[in-house]
Order: sequence, then structure tokens, then C-alpha cells
Amino acid sequence: MNLLTPDSLPPALQAATTYRDLTAEQVVFRQDEQALAIFIVETGRVRLDRYTKEGKTTVFQVARVGESFAESALFLDVHSCDALAEVPSRVIIYPKQPLLSALRNCPDLAEDFLERLVRKSQSLKARLELRSIRSARNRVLHYLLVEAQPGETTVNFDRPLKDVAGDLGLTPEVLYRTLARLEREGMITRTNQQITLHPSAA
Amino acid sequence: MNLLTPDSLPPALQAATTYRDLTAEQVVFRQDEQALAIFIVETGRVRLDRYTKEGKTTVFQVARVGESFAESALFLDVHSCDALAEVPSRVIIYPKQPLLSALRNCPDLAEDFLERLVRKSQSLKARLELRSIRSARNRVLHYLLVEAQPGETTVNFDRPLKDVAGDLGLTPEVLYRTLARLEREGMITRTNQQITLHPSAA
Repeated sequence: MNLLTPDSLPPALQAATTYRDLTAEQVVFRQDEQALAIFIVETGRVRLDRYTKEGKTTVFQVARVGESFAESALFLDVHSCDALAEVPSRVIIYPKQPLLSALRNCPDLAEDFLERLVRKSQSLKARLELRSIRSARNRVLHYLLVEAQPGETTVNFDRPLKDVAGDLGLTPEVLYRTLARLEREGMITRTNQQITLHPSAA
Repeated sequence: MNLLTPDSLPPALQAATTYRDLTAEQVVFRQDEQALAIFIVETGRVRLDRYTKEGKTTVFQVARVGESFAESALFLDVHSCDALAEVPSRVIIYPKQPLLSALRNCPDLAEDFLERLVRKSQSLKARLELRSIRSARNRVLHYLLVEAQPGETTVNFDRPLKDVAGDLGLTPEVLYRTLARLEREGMITRTNQQITLHPSAA
């Protein structure tokens, strides 16, 4: 039983499930709009972010295939951020009341949902930790070390570096300048969408 | 059925529940230690934070009476941060396996736990948003506006300002200087543990 495969879910929840196709840059919802549903990314990629008074963006999450977003709709009335498709995407939409009922009746589904929320919290903590690193150089280096899979030294980006800059809380210009500096220092090698960390970076 | 009142819980979970009294500054667990249990603050206050390579601290949460911490122990093997009592405190300790069983058998308890995790995510998002505000002045002002209850203009602190500085990602010195500046600008009035926002601050 899994939110990514609606066919596996209780009939009442299946009946309430809908889908939406999104073009690149299309908005799923805006912050402060009424929160009526929880979403799963079936294809594509959805970014969740919030604007501060200073006009800066805080990226809360980049939801990829199989990942959920807006789970807080279960208990809160409005969305706390915007959701926007970064590329052409398709989302599964679970209205909150039928989902809450299914969670009460299916311990497996509830456990899967709990685990999603725990992993979401871990990812928010990692973003918070990143933001606590003042120097752009150290922040970028920390990000690359975290993004490289354990035992690997290469990071493959599935999105433009200007979007990655948003995750880091840096302007694209500062990110490009910092990567150029790390390359001059011999810490990394770059090709188009790939960065390799050298042993000196660890 | 509620994690704050162990008597209301299934007998198997009650039997596994223990308590721990903590003195001020006493450590509950350290980051990377094995995660064996979930905690509820019965009295006092527990801070969860993590050290970056730069030696800075990222405060993930300040858990007050009735609040849980280390919920991620349910699905992860090690703690991702330190937990430390800020004042003399008492915590309820739920070992993870008996708690997981109880969550599977008690939909009410599972729903309460889901809601705790959602609120925890919201609080992490608020911390992340705060860290995205570059200027210390605007960051402090945003923090005070959020901390004041809706319709209120006064923030009462239950902890020393040096600890509040940690929440804001500022040194105590920068926080004191920023508050003095906001007072000179006529945005706030301060007494010892209380700050009042003036209409110009909104």
C-alpha cells in the first residue's frame, strides 16, 4: 500500500483521487491559499518556496518522482508556501478528508506517511544547517559533500545551477563565482551538469 | 490517548516507558549516537542543536512542556543532533519498537503523532525562513512579529536573550546591538525579559 500507486489504496480513497498535468513553471498552489489536498509527484519535479519581505526566496523542498508535498494540509487550513512545477510534471492529488480516513484504517499507509514526514523533517534540518554556514565557499563545499552519494565523489545535477543556487540561499552569480574559486583551488573539477570533488575537499 | 499522559496508553507501551530527570545543561543524547527512543518534555525545556564544521550551532528545536523530540528515531538509526536540557527538566522516554507497535494499533495515537510531525515541519520551515533574511535588523524584527501572539504586541521571553540569539543564528552581541538600534529607531520598547513592538514595526 503506497501513495505512489493509487491502485493499491482503499476504494474510497481511490475514488477521490485525481491527477493534474503541469507545464514547466506552472503553479500548483500559492502560499495562503486554502489547503485541500496532499500531492505526490508522479513525473517531473515540483519546487516549494516562500517569499520573504526582503523579496528573497526560501526553498523548502524540491519534490521529485515518488515524493509527497503539502502533507501539512492534513492539519492546517492554508498552504505555507508556493508550489511550482520546475519542468513538465504530473501530480497525484489526494483530498485531505478521504486520506485522513484511509490513514486511520490502514496502519501500513499511516506508517509510510509517518516515514515520509520524518524524512521531510530531516531534509528541512539539512537545509537549515546549510543556511547556518556563513561563508559561501564553505556552504557550497558542504552542499557538494552532502549531495555526493556515500563513497562517491561526483555530483550529477538534474536541474540548472541557477535553481541549485536557490537551494543554497545564494544568487546564481555568487554560486558561479564560488565554483570557479573552488576549481582554481583544485577542490573540484566541473563539466556541464557534473561536479567531481577532489580528495582535498573532504 | 496522548503521549504526554502515559497512563492513557496501551499497557505494553506503558510497561516500556521510563523517565529521566535532568539538571540544567545536562545532555540527553549526542548527534551520531544510536537512536533508541522518542522523548516528551514533562517539565522544563530541551534544546536540539547541531554543530557545523565552522563551529557554529544550528538550533533545530526548543522543546517545551508537552512537546516531543527525536521522533525521527522511529525510522533512523542515529540522532542527527544533540539534545540538552536548558533548565532542570524531566522527560518521558518511549522506546521506539513498543511505540511503533502502539502507533500501528491505535489510530488516535498515530493521528496525534502525525500532527506532531507536521507542526515540527512548520517550525523548521519558520526557522529556515528566518535564516534566509540577511539583514540582522530585519531578521530580529521578523522574529519578534512572529513570536508576538496574534493581536498582541508584546513578546515575553522564557529564556535568556543569549539563548534567543542562537535561535536567530546571531551572536549575542549582534542581537543586543540590533535590539538597541530598534529601540533607538522607536520600533520597540524593552524591559528585562519583555519586548513591546510599536505600530511602526508591523
